[in-house]
Amino acid sequence: MPVLVMKFGGTSVANIDRIHRAAKRVALEVAKGYDVIVVVSAMSGKTNELVGWVNETSPLYDAREYDAVVASGENVTAGLMALRLQEMDIPARSWQGWQVPVKTTSAHGSARIEDIPPDNINRKFAEGMRVAVVAGFQGISPEGRVTTLGRGGSDTTAVAFAAAFNAERCDIYTDVDGVYTTDPRICDKARKLDRIAFEEMLELASLGAKVLQTRSVELAMRYKVRLRVLSSFDEYSETAGTLVCDEEEIMESNVVAGVAFNRDEAKMTLTAVADRPGIAAAIFGPLSEAGVNVDMIVQNISEDGRTDMTFSLPVDQIKRAEKAVMQATGRGDYTFSDLVTDDAVAKVSVVGIGMRSHTGVAARMFKALSAERINIKVITTSEIKISVLIDRKYMELAVQALHDEFGLEKA
Amino acid sequence: MPVLVMKFGGTSVANIDRIHRAAKRVALEVAKGYDVIVVVSAMSGKTNELVGWVNETSPLYDAREYDAVVASGENVTAGLMALRLQEMDIPARSWQGWQVPVKTTSAHGSARIEDIPPDNINRKFAEGMRVAVVAGFQGISPEGRVTTLGRGGSDTTAVAFAAAFNAERCDIYTDVDGVYTTDPRICDKARKLDRIAFEEMLELASLGAKVLQTRSVELAMRYKVRLRVLSSFDEYSETAGTLVCDEEEIMESNVVAGVAFNRDEAKMTLTAVADRPGIAAAIFGPLSEAGVNVDMIVQNISEDGRTDMTFSLPVDQIKRAEKAVMQATGRGDYTFSDLVTDDAVAKVSVVGIGMRSHTGVAARMFKALSAERINIKVITTSEIKISVLIDRKYMELAVQALHDEFGLEKA
Repeated sequence: MPVLVMKFGGTSVANIDRIHRAAKRVALEVAKGYDVIVVVSAMSGKTNELVGWVNETSPLYDAREYDAVVASGENVTAGLMALRLQEMDIPARSWQGWQVPVKTTSAHGSARIEDIPPDNINRKFAEGMRVAVVAGFQGISPEGRVTTLGRGGSDTTAVAFAAAFNAERCDIYTDVDGVYTTDPRICDKARKLDRIAFEEMLELASLGAKVLQTRSVELAMRYKVRLRVLSSFDEYSETAGTLVCDEEEIMESNVVAGVAFNRDEAKMTLTAVADRPGIAAAIFGPLSEAGVNVDMIVQNISEDGRTDMTFSLPVDQIKRAEKAVMQATGRGDYTFSDLVTDDAVAKVSVVGIGMRSHTGVAARMFKALSAERINIKVITTSEIKISVLIDRKYMELAVQALHDEFGLEKA
Repeated sequence: MPVLVMKFGGTSVANIDRIHRAAKRVALEVAKGYDVIVVVSAMSGKTNELVGWVNETSPLYDAREYDAVVASGENVTAGLMALRLQEMDIPARSWQGWQVPVKTTSAHGSARIEDIPPDNINRKFAEGMRVAVVAGFQGISPEGRVTTLGRGGSDTTAVAFAAAFNAERCDIYTDVDGVYTTDPRICDKARKLDRIAFEEMLELASLGAKVLQTRSVELAMRYKVRLRVLSSFDEYSETAGTLVCDEEEIMESNVVAGVAFNRDEAKMTLTAVADRPGIAAAIFGPLSEAGVNVDMIVQNISEDGRTDMTFSLPVDQIKRAEKAVMQATGRGDYTFSDLVTDDAVAKVSVVGIGMRSHTGVAARMFKALSAERINIKVITTSEIKISVLIDRKYMELAVQALHDEFGLEKA
C-alpha cells in the first residue's frame, strides 16, 4: 500500500482532545488506503518543562543526559496517539527512536539522522498494522544512547521517514494554514500559496519564516519528498495548506513568490581597514569563532589602500562582535579607524525561482523602495533572492510596497 | 569495589531540590568507596498524570502502549539524577530499562524481571563510572517493547539489581523512617523496629503495611538481599531506618514483631450449601475468575449433609462477589439457602517469627481481645501469623490492646 507520513507539532497534540482530533485526520488517510507513519512532537509546553528541569539541575549539562530526559516527551505523545487510533479500531503501535531504529550521529542535542532501516516497521505493516506512530525529534547513537535532533527536529524526522519509506507525501500539521507570500500580520494583502518550490521555501525559512525547520526542507529537497504544510485546526480538504515541491511541479508562478523580512538586524562598519589580501579572513574569522552570525557583507571601493568593511548581524550579537573585533585588533590581526554600529536596521528580501529567467527584478525592487523614499544601506543577491538592509522603521512599509509591486495578492 | 543499591521513591525525587538532596546521600556512599546503583521512581504525581492521560485516551487500553507512556516518568528522573551527580563531580550516567537491559516477561503492566545481565554497567564501573542511575519500574520484553512492573515496581527493580550485582545492601529511601510495630496513627506506642525478618516483613506487607511492595520482599528473601528502609527526609546516620534481613541476623526478638490490620474487609456467608467433595472448588473457583480476592475461609461443622461457608474479601468487591455467586448458582454449580453479607468488619493480625518456637500466642491474643469484650468472627493462623476478623468499630481498640499485650513498645 502507498505510504503517507503525517507529522503533528506540539500545538496539534497539546492535550487529549487535540490528540483525538489529530487521530481523526489520520483515520481519513487510512480510509483512503494509505499505510500511515505518524510523527509526533511532545505535547506543547512539555519540552520546555523538561529543558527547564535540566537547566535547573545542571547549567552546563551533559548533552547525553539532556537528550535522555528531553526525548521522553515525544514517547508520551506517541503512546497516547497509538492508543487513540486503537480506540478507533485502527491497528496502530508506537515506536520510540531506538525501536525503529532511527540511527543518528553521536552529536547529542543536535544529532543528524544517518539511517532509518525500514524493515521493522514494514514487517508490521505486512502483518496488518496500518499506522506506525513514531516519536519525533529522537534517535539512537552508535553507542546505544538516546539522541535528539535539536529544536524543530520532528519536521526532520518526518521528512527522513518519508524518504526512507518512499512516501507519497509528507504532511506537516501545524498551527498555521500554509506558507504565505509574506507575514499577514505585516501586510493584510498576504496570500496563502498553493505551491512553493523547495528552493524558495529554503530561502524563506532561513529568512525567518518559522513554518518549517530549514534542515527538514533541505532533506526534502535532496530526496524530493513532497511536503505539505497545513493547519490541524481547519476543516480537512484535499487542497488545504501549501505544497512544498520540486519546481517542475509548479506549472506557472509569479516571478517573486514571497517577501521575507528580519526585523532584528544590526549593521557594523569598520572604516579604513587595509585593503590587502586576507583582510576579509582576518576580520570575519574571529567573528565566526566568537559565534557571531555575519550575514550580508559589503566592501567599499578602496582609496589610498584603505577600505570600509560593512556587515550585518543579529542585533543581540553586537556586544559579542565588538568584543571579537577588539580582541583581534589587540592581537594585531588588523587595524581600523572607526567602528560604527547601527542597531536599528532590518532586512527585507524578495524570493522567487522566477528570477532565474526574468531580469529586472532588482531594478523593480529598488524603484519601489525609492518611490517610498526608503534608503537602501546594503544589498545582497543570490540566484533566487534579493535582500536589502534598510532602517527598521521603514520595514513594514517596504514589505507592503514590494508585495504590491510584484502583485503577490493575485495567484 | 563493593556495590550498594539505593532506591529513591517518588516523594524523594518530587522536585529538583529533592533530587539534589537525594544526590547528596548518594555522594556520601560514593565517598565511602561504594560503586552505587541508584534506582529512581518518577517524580511524585507524574505517573498519575500519565496514567490519567492513558485512561482518558483509551479506557480499555493496550497495555503495551500504557507501558510505553508510563515508563517515561522514570526516564526523566534518571537523567536529572545523573546530571545532578555530575554537577557534584561524581562520574554518573543514566540507564533506561532497555539499555541495561532489564529483561522481563511480556506481561505488560505487571511484567516480571527475568534477567539483568550486569556486563554493560560493570564495564562502565570498570571505566571509572561511580554511579549508574537506573530508571525503576521498567524493562524490555522479548519482543523489544517497553514493559512496566506494576505499581511499586521500583522497589522490585532495586532488589533485582542488588541480587544481580551481589550488592552489600539495598537501601530503600522513602517518606517513612522505617517499619513500625504497628501504624503510629492508630497506636501512639508504636515503635520503629531496628530489624525485621523477611518473613515478618512479607506478612506485614501483604497485610497492608505499605512500606515495601510484597514482590520486592519476596525477591529479597529468595536472594538474601539485605534491605534497609529509611527516610530521605531525616538526617543521615549509619543506623537509620529498619533493616529487613534474614532471621539469622536478628539476635533476639519479641515473640510478636508487629500488629497489622486491614480496615476495609467484608464477610460473606453462604448458608446450607451441600457438604460434598468439590463444594469449595465450586464456590471459590468462580469467585477467583471474577477477580474477587478471597482471603480467610471458614467452613462450619456439617449438619444433615449441609454446611455454612464463610469467607472474607475486600469491601469494594462485594458487588462483584454477589454477581459471581448468582451466576454460579444460576448455572447449577451449587445451591444455598441464604447469602449473608457483613460489610463492617476489619482484620487484625499479629506477626512474628518467634511464634515458631513459642506456644500460647493465640491464647494470649484471644484473651486480650476478650478482655476488651471484642467478639471474634473468623480466625486463621499460619506459622508466623494469627489473624482475626472483628467488627470494624473495634479495630483501633484491638490493635492497641494487642500492642500492649505483647509488649511491643519495648525493644
